[in-house]
Amino acid sequence: MAKKHILIVPGDGIGQEVTAVGKKVLDKIAARFNHEFTYDEALIGHVAIEATGDPLPAESLEKMRNSDAILFGAVGHPKYDNDPSAKVRPEQGLLKMRKELGLYANLRPIKLFDELLGASSIKPEILKGADILFFRELTGDIYFGEKGRKNNGDTAYDVAEYSRYEVQRIGRKAFDAARTRRKKLVSVDKANVLESSRLWREEIQKLALEYPDVEVEYQFVDATAMILIKEPTRFDVVVTANLFGDILTDEASQIAGSMGMLASASIGDGTGVYEPIHGSAHDITGKGLANPMASVLSAALLLDISFGLKEESEAIISAIDQVLKKGFRTRDIADKTTDPSMILGTDAIGEEILKLL
Amino acid sequence: MAKKHILIVPGDGIGQEVTAVGKKVLDKIAARFNHEFTYDEALIGHVAIEATGDPLPAESLEKMRNSDAILFGAVGHPKYDNDPSAKVRPEQGLLKMRKELGLYANLRPIKLFDELLGASSIKPEILKGADILFFRELTGDIYFGEKGRKNNGDTAYDVAEYSRYEVQRIGRKAFDAARTRRKKLVSVDKANVLESSRLWREEIQKLALEYPDVEVEYQFVDATAMILIKEPTRFDVVVTANLFGDILTDEASQIAGSMGMLASASIGDGTGVYEPIHGSAHDITGKGLANPMASVLSAALLLDISFGLKEESEAIISAIDQVLKKGFRTRDIADKTTDPSMILGTDAIGEEILKLL
Ligand SMILES: [Mg+2]
Ligand SMILES: [Mg+2]
Repeated sequence: MAKKHILIVPGDGIGQEVTAVGKKVLDKIAARFNHEFTYDEALIGHVAIEATGDPLPAESLEKMRNSDAILFGAVGHPKYDNDPSAKVRPEQGLLKMRKELGLYANLRPIKLFDELLGASSIKPEILKGADILFFRELTGDIYFGEKGRKNNGDTAYDVAEYSRYEVQRIGRKAFDAARTRRKKLVSVDKANVLESSRLWREEIQKLALEYPDVEVEYQFVDATAMILIKEPTRFDVVVTANLFGDILTDEASQIAGSMGMLASASIGDGTGVYEPIHGSAHDITGKGLANPMASVLSAALLLDISFGLKEESEAIISAIDQVLKKGFRTRDIADKTTDPSMILGTDAIGEEILKLL
Repeated sequence: MAKKHILIVPGDGIGQEVTAVGKKVLDKIAARFNHEFTYDEALIGHVAIEATGDPLPAESLEKMRNSDAILFGAVGHPKYDNDPSAKVRPEQGLLKMRKELGLYANLRPIKLFDELLGASSIKPEILKGADILFFRELTGDIYFGEKGRKNNGDTAYDVAEYSRYEVQRIGRKAFDAARTRRKKLVSVDKANVLESSRLWREEIQKLALEYPDVEVEYQFVDATAMILIKEPTRFDVVVTANLFGDILTDEASQIAGSMGMLASASIGDGTGVYEPIHGSAHDITGKGLANPMASVLSAALLLDISFGLKEESEAIISAIDQVLKKGFRTRDIADKTTDPSMILGTDAIGEEILKLL
């Protein structure tokens, strides 16, 4: 029996509605598998600014630090899009949270449900069976190195940098995850050109000696961009640097087709954060139309990664698979062939998932 | 009437066989459109090493400089793959040629023939009509900046750099090309994060003022990696930096599916070089099996880009389209549905193309 404290951070827009379903699913799992989950809730983003003036109040951060995992909704409000000069912005809460919790790895599972294979631009026969887990490094690379202008402003530069320590810590997480999956790791770099990639590869090669049961393949980023399209089923776990991960995870989520079904995790050495890749979607907020499945899959990812509860995680994924097989859809994943009576709102599809847990 | 001197540089492996067909096509075009093309031939790569000891003999370079355009084959020999310590290598000829001719832009057209839509992993209805011309910068970015180690070797770094001049010269080529096409240019960068991307965008924005007839869109590289899959028909001309171009052109050629059908150009302020993206393919060299269509399309690209002969270029593309529509295939683009009697060798399919010119 696991005893865990989970913080729900709904944030803005549909974040409220979808994390409510995610929490119910966690509750049902606790009952079925005899775990004890306790919950608290904290503010972030626009709702936090409205309530306290601060996009990440000290109280929220304190609660985050003291929880075992965080189920996160979304952050953002259209009000700020039209006001680029606003000094206090919802996204600052997100960035501060990542920094304060030391979240150095972003995990993006690309798991395709058979029923939704048709939603992708890729042919179903190419996609069928694809199940990839990306690890993107989040704190280093060309995003955070020195940058500026020289030669009277006529030249601009950015420095990409990685330390051995930064590669080791994410590499180890990726190897650990591969061990619980199909034991295949692809490390993506550009070691034929970049010194930072050569260091990256050296460290992964060293780690590989500690994981003789994991089969490691080294790919150049341009090759990976091709193989993701040609043969997505070839991948199990993929680990890569910040910039390459930024590009490849977006490419891969497009391969999946149904963005409303994708979860992600940001993890470090402390509390992990689990959230849908979709945004706050203010256009449908409060209408009960939002697809809660990415939040439910975020809960599944939370159980798997932060608590090591693999069976529980798979029970959730399987419940979603069955709901889809029964023909239930939310509006965003319905198509011309969907019977209108099978198109459910946020809570109704949540109930269907809960019935199967 | 155009009077031009074209240098044929077959290089290694199937380069000989495919450029021979390319040259015949150029000859036929000259006759039909009343141009005067003269030819010479030069050595590069393994064949040059065998003949002279030098992968790019001074005589070849001299001929390159004095020609109006170069139809290039391929470079490489398996002998060197098994001998990584070899001091003299075929690829050195290629690198030296690029440097000496000042080739700063790599052009990669992604043009899909209706008959081959099925060869891609992407659904035909998504792909149909896609016609993209990539401009990848070749001399700057993180590939050529300072790189090294510090902190006792525990940190590795690479510097990405662009000068205004470097962006302007490729930007201008891309705008010029857009003007002769559908007048749409997408400039790809990561200006939300990188200073070199911000400079890139500033220069493209300045150029845009000179080309009011060209519609310009700015995309972040991760968005482009997605849209290429979701909606490839949205692109006309794409211009981007060296690293992003390396990744995106490979992704895009995979979208096209048939690598044996893709041509590329490397251009600068002097002679331009036109070549298939496929390699020397020593496994089928001398067997008359190679697909010459990428070389023929390279000849079409040469006429279009170096000589401005757009109608002539389109006549070649249309001839290939008709040959495919008649059902003729080379082995590499045949599938289960192909009548074996329609699978032709290098010269035979070349003859079918020539008949239609
Ligand atoms: Mg991204
Ligand atoms: Mg490449």
